[in-house]
Amino acid sequence: MTSVEELKLRVRELENELIKCKQKRCTAMCAIDKMSAEVVDSNPYSRLMALKRMGIVEDYEKIRTFTVAVVGVGGVGSVTAEMLTRCGIGKLILFDYDKVELANMNRLFFQPHQAGLSKVEAAEHTLRNINPDVQFETHNYNITTMENFAHFMDRISYGALQEGKAVDLILSCVDNFEARMAINAACNELGQIWMESGVSENAVSGHIQLIIPGETACFACAPPLVVAANIDEKTLKREGVCAASLPTTMGVVAGILVQNVLKYLLKFGTVSHYLGYNAMQDFFPTMAMKANPTCDDRHCRKQQDDFKAERPKKVVEEVVEEEVVHEENDWGIELVSEQTEEELHAASGPVPDLPEGITVAYTIPEKETGASGGETVEETEQSLEELMAQMRKM
Amino acid sequence: MTSVEELKLRVRELENELIKCKQKRCTAMCAIDKMSAEVVDSNPYSRLMALKRMGIVEDYEKIRTFTVAVVGVGGVGSVTAEMLTRCGIGKLILFDYDKVELANMNRLFFQPHQAGLSKVEAAEHTLRNINPDVQFETHNYNITTMENFAHFMDRISYGALQEGKAVDLILSCVDNFEARMAINAACNELGQIWMESGVSENAVSGHIQLIIPGETACFACAPPLVVAANIDEKTLKREGVCAASLPTTMGVVAGILVQNVLKYLLKFGTVSHYLGYNAMQDFFPTMAMKANPTCDDRHCRKQQDDFKAERPKKVVEEVVEEEVVHEENDWGIELVSEQTEEELHAASGPVPDLPEGITVAYTIPEKETGASGGETVEETEQSLEELMAQMRKM
Repeated sequence: MTSVEELKLRVRELENELIKCKQKRCTAMCAIDKMSAEVVDSNPYSRLMALKRMGIVEDYEKIRTFTVAVVGVGGVGSVTAEMLTRCGIGKLILFDYDKVELANMNRLFFQPHQAGLSKVEAAEHTLRNINPDVQFETHNYNITTMENFAHFMDRISYGALQEGKAVDLILSCVDNFEARMAINAACNELGQIWMESGVSENAVSGHIQLIIPGETACFACAPPLVVAANIDEKTLKREGVCAASLPTTMGVVAGILVQNVLKYLLKFGTVSHYLGYNAMQDFFPTMAMKANPTCDDRHCRKQQDDFKAERPKKVVEEVVEEEVVHEENDWGIELVSEQTEEELHAASGPVPDLPEGITVAYTIPEKETGASGGETVEETEQSLEELMAQMRKM
Repeated sequence: MTSVEELKLRVRELENELIKCKQKRCTAMCAIDKMSAEVVDSNPYSRLMALKRMGIVEDYEKIRTFTVAVVGVGGVGSVTAEMLTRCGIGKLILFDYDKVELANMNRLFFQPHQAGLSKVEAAEHTLRNINPDVQFETHNYNITTMENFAHFMDRISYGALQEGKAVDLILSCVDNFEARMAINAACNELGQIWMESGVSENAVSGHIQLIIPGETACFACAPPLVVAANIDEKTLKREGVCAASLPTTMGVVAGILVQNVLKYLLKFGTVSHYLGYNAMQDFFPTMAMKANPTCDDRHCRKQQDDFKAERPKKVVEEVVEEEVVHEENDWGIELVSEQTEEELHAASGPVPDLPEGITVAYTIPEKETGASGGETVEETEQSLEELMAQMRKM
């Protein structure tokens, strides 16, 4: 019944349809040479270049020269990578050893059809489709093993867009202590600036932290402060328990993380040293923390010496000015309020008249009831030890 | 050269490949009857149901009974819809009249291959793939025209999962004054609780606001406060100017919006009345605002009367307790600090010892320099008029 002609026609039809189906995602956006500020519907950068006209960023195009490494491409890391991709970052280097599972579908980014793929592979595929201008390098391994750690060190030292240069920033989006310690060790040794992020196991708090080796507290200077979910999901799963997670909390943490990355790289606004997020109360505590002179990590101590030698006055004095050292301070950590005396006074006194009423409308949340873990730094009557024990739970 | 057999084989091959290509996205996740808390890699709800075990949410499954309307499926609305979809919301009703453009690619959610599609169509397609358990209803129209407004009123009044019931919440994710006024008018008439969201035209600030008709200020009670980007993109484009936008700011606003939706629907934590986000300083002001007895919207005034009649003591007293009325107050608005006297005292006094040092580590940001617009509510020395003039720019 079926003639050769008819069959040939059908083959051609099907081939065309298949090409269309496969290429659907690749035809819409082509790699560019130069970011355009032209305001046309077809320009993917018009709304970013508008940041220049608005007086927010001086040189937005500079973003194309930066390389950022993202370690951990889960609930926070994947959204972080997507935001940077859409912003037109020069190059992303992604590290993760996990596979996409349907159990990840309660967070943004990955889609059900990607289940079973490695997270870095799935992420690269999606991100390339979104923005072909970004260069990607992915590593599907655990950075904490000896061999992989050496390779990780090599890639962050020499993997930048500019051949042989170090990356501009490393973002820790991992969910365990060992991986954070590995990033910390690498960054202390290399003097590499990085940002930490984390979400609590009860899904309702998170934080980001900027770590400048030798200057601000590293992960070994004050471990509890930066451990957001010090919990091995594999262990938990085995026991039939698992950490909770929400796309909202992870989206907010990724958002404030990448916002600070943009502020740091493109030099606008104020980069936060530590910014917490308490989702139960919509409370966002901030603080700064100096490096610990008795830190266990010898590279951290060396960076501190170098920092003091290089910049003997400027930053050190600024920080020391308001320092408050607790009497019984096993860690030798100094927590530094980001407020000046005057600012404190501005927030004090009797309940003020209307304009002041708005100024002091920062909520000081009451104690959370019913929720275990995830407590942040709002408590007032605690010793450093109690505080740290609490933070360890984050 | 080509035999009929060979051609038939090729047709079969191609057909199979095409089916695979088309269905790729549909095979991984199947609709469920009941949310499972089982901790297996294949359960998309395990990390959400864990919120119960963690003591955060009492009855997470209840989320499947709720219907939420999202008006505006752009930078904030699309991510809002995705978060709710991944959380397993019962039903989403999406309203937008815009098409996807490559100029949207600097924000999360839409992908280049969707350029040209209507936003609601593209969103529904992506969201169905992510979670087939969610019901979708989409309307590709502008709610501000008379005919569409009537249809909009009908759908929010009767479009819930439970046939003939009103939706549980409306989320305003629009970018213009007219659409906000339309939602406001509809919600005042129906006594429908809704949440407002907005991002400034310079992309570095945003806000969310809970509006309970008759109880809290509606959009007509105090327009400037809720206008985040009172700017018609179409007009701007014509003049070769366009608003800036960032995936970070919009991701954060969507995150805090949906977090408050979850808190409101599932009854945990504290729902914020007004939460701002100043990205330059990482400053998150909060406040609450009562309804204006002289509001232009007669339905708002009627809701206020009903509210006072129904709940003569409870909420009214609570709010009045700390109210601060400005002397020259054209709007008749009362801004209410969310802090108690005791909380203010806790944050005052001399620079405190360490634990206190952390408590007062909320930054009181200095004035933004160089950035026009996007100023938020941190100023101290202003009259209500000055403040509102400033907010009008948001």
